[in-house]
Amino acid sequence: MEKQDSQFSVAIVGGGVAGVTLTIALAKRGIDVQIFEQAPQFTEIGAGIAFSPNAKQAMKKCDPAVHEAYLHVATASGNPDKVNTWYDFVDGYTDKDSEHWLFDVTRDAPADGCHRAHFLEEMIKLVPEGTAHFNKHLDNLVENGDDKPITLKFSDGTTAEADVGKSLIATDGIKSSVRGMMFGKDSLVAKPTYTHRYAYRGLLKMENAVKALGKDLATNRTMHLGQDGHILTFPVAHGKILNVVAFKYDPGEWTDSRLVVPTTKEDAKRDYRGWGSKVQAIVDLLEDKLDKWAIFDLGDHPVSTYAKGRIAIVGDAAHATGPHHGAGAGICIEDSAILAELLAVAWTRLEEQSTRVSKTEVLENVLKVFDGERRERTQWLVQSSRASVELYEWRDRLCKRDPAKIKEQILWRNHKIWRVDMDDMVAEANRKLEELIM
Amino acid sequence: MEKQDSQFSVAIVGGGVAGVTLTIALAKRGIDVQIFEQAPQFTEIGAGIAFSPNAKQAMKKCDPAVHEAYLHVATASGNPDKVNTWYDFVDGYTDKDSEHWLFDVTRDAPADGCHRAHFLEEMIKLVPEGTAHFNKHLDNLVENGDDKPITLKFSDGTTAEADVGKSLIATDGIKSSVRGMMFGKDSLVAKPTYTHRYAYRGLLKMENAVKALGKDLATNRTMHLGQDGHILTFPVAHGKILNVVAFKYDPGEWTDSRLVVPTTKEDAKRDYRGWGSKVQAIVDLLEDKLDKWAIFDLGDHPVSTYAKGRIAIVGDAAHATGPHHGAGAGICIEDSAILAELLAVAWTRLEEQSTRVSKTEVLENVLKVFDGERRERTQWLVQSSRASVELYEWRDRLCKRDPAKIKEQILWRNHKIWRVDMDDMVAEANRKLEELIM
Repeated sequence: MEKQDSQFSVAIVGGGVAGVTLTIALAKRGIDVQIFEQAPQFTEIGAGIAFSPNAKQAMKKCDPAVHEAYLHVATASGNPDKVNTWYDFVDGYTDKDSEHWLFDVTRDAPADGCHRAHFLEEMIKLVPEGTAHFNKHLDNLVENGDDKPITLKFSDGTTAEADVGKSLIATDGIKSSVRGMMFGKDSLVAKPTYTHRYAYRGLLKMENAVKALGKDLATNRTMHLGQDGHILTFPVAHGKILNVVAFKYDPGEWTDSRLVVPTTKEDAKRDYRGWGSKVQAIVDLLEDKLDKWAIFDLGDHPVSTYAKGRIAIVGDAAHATGPHHGAGAGICIEDSAILAELLAVAWTRLEEQSTRVSKTEVLENVLKVFDGERRERTQWLVQSSRASVELYEWRDRLCKRDPAKIKEQILWRNHKIWRVDMDDMVAEANRKLEELIM
Repeated sequence: MEKQDSQFSVAIVGGGVAGVTLTIALAKRGIDVQIFEQAPQFTEIGAGIAFSPNAKQAMKKCDPAVHEAYLHVATASGNPDKVNTWYDFVDGYTDKDSEHWLFDVTRDAPADGCHRAHFLEEMIKLVPEGTAHFNKHLDNLVENGDDKPITLKFSDGTTAEADVGKSLIATDGIKSSVRGMMFGKDSLVAKPTYTHRYAYRGLLKMENAVKALGKDLATNRTMHLGQDGHILTFPVAHGKILNVVAFKYDPGEWTDSRLVVPTTKEDAKRDYRGWGSKVQAIVDLLEDKLDKWAIFDLGDHPVSTYAKGRIAIVGDAAHATGPHHGAGAGICIEDSAILAELLAVAWTRLEEQSTRVSKTEVLENVLKVFDGERRERTQWLVQSSRASVELYEWRDRLCKRDPAKIKEQILWRNHKIWRVDMDDMVAEANRKLEELIM
């Protein structure tokens, strides 16, 4: 699989947002890359997804074509005045239109979202032929010592060698088997934590949603806040579909081994009993047979490093977060952009023979710098997502249900996510790498 | 000095930019404050000073009047097209006008500067009468144990008590005696480090500068780069005066106990021998009798905390930096703004009796949060100032004298300084305090 004359090659394990964007970004830079996905094809579970300004910068940095792919499917709020509104925040208990409004959170750049499957479909077109290998479930990593190849054993009986000129990048999600292999599969960091939230998800026909909710609530990005629960809605599919995610606080433990379990609309109705008529209407529009999604994250036991030798965990495998900032997928794309840029520096320096360290050390330093640049920001996001849902669900002990206080907390947290400069992050990371290898 | 019915009071030791802005900010918030300065009056040494966008936000947060005071004396580049240009970077060796240009660094907000004395004069007007005490040289701090008063002994024989309802904020500069008292006066952190740079400073009549340099170089903010030295110039006094700082790398040690020593123009001429005609012209315009300033910082031995109990070091006392980002005074004003906001939260919570901890603990937590929020950013600035001067003086081993590479490094470093949101920093800090005391 590896060209004889290449500087090094990269094996990516797992084909979600992080793996696919990283593959595209590396291919764009002329770097040998292979991606191994356990499913028979790339798939996305879930429905709606949204990307904030940092994520769009990161898409462009990976490959402008990734950003264009997103723009093909991105859908903004229906009201042109709301193009920069992240969400309108409304009171989930009030029946009267005149009493709904709490506050909005806007930003300097458009807010939009799309259907996950539509985005994936566009992105797959950008993965070069021959790069992706399916039905490759990683069973084991055999490390043979420093400066020796690492063997990837797949459950179909095939193997791949990660030799000294190869990095292994695990983008295998929240349940990452590589994270387990790096830290021990019984270690605390190997296990995600139940965040005491589950969610019902649905896709409603927009015409039905408009009838039930009115045009404003249906077509603009909206968060219905309430005690121990909240519901977010945003348009996708160019406004033909309304994406709904209804979250509920759950003081108990999640005992099912599956993270998604079937349930019925009756369950959902029970959870929002006593809420306002608009929330009831949203729940009524859901299908009778529903899934209930348990929301897990890696917040209780953050890993101490994303990199060990020539192996790194990237994206959800490293820092799976709850969805409450709407920034989880976007920060994975940031990971891809920065790692691709670091690997491109490594590639160029090895090509020019301008590095003073060995090829193995160059690759190890790439991953070390990646860890150093990414861990704080991405682990902060996990904690801040937890803090945000407490705010939305009136459980924050300092803000309670005071809209002004809630908004203030939401603002500074989102600004940390949104207001970054990808060029600066890349320049800083690349500089650190060059200091180590040049 | 302390009102009977006040929540607490604050004693500030040292009347530089940090101490004076903090005094103004606290007085503005109705908080009891006293400032003790060892000189017979507030004084500023040095000539030019400039403030970046973060610093202007911080001024406004301290008190809008501080920002207005600055605007009274601020001077921008002479060319209206250059209002947002931080500096034009030019080659210090070239004689020909056509070969001077290297690059410029611009930003989203105006770049300007002023004479230090003019700014101080405006600020002094904002210090409430009866707040400032002069000829108060701090000889000793006598700590009497937890929950006991701290005694400040001044060399004029007077004392002040910092009782349990009082914070002691040391803004006593790079040679801070309080830092020595906190960490031991023989500890490494007590001693500033010579950065192997000294500088000649001068104030030139603009008409002479224009004659010698031409209008562009004289009236716009300019950095002349060269090997092991650089010269910066910017207009002050509404364009009537050109502020000049000529820096020189010095591989030796600084052995004089004074940080400013007298020298002559002949010394300066020797230092820039072989440089281009414009640099020679600048040096020629300096006065015959000059001072040479040793540039020290706290970069070799950063302190492990800015706060111990009810005592904190703030501003240069905590993180004195070289001047190469032009951001040292500005980041001291950030300190003042954030500390004033934290103390205002404490004041309100004590007044409302809505805190669950004692008054002493409230004040200790204010300083602990201040340390947690400020240490990383401010200590980073010290290191980044060191990295910047290496770039300006073609000593950076990776960029050497490549203008594009130098610019790239300067950009991301300055963006870290400039692109912050004071409201967000305050909201985050205040939230951390409230979590601890509410």
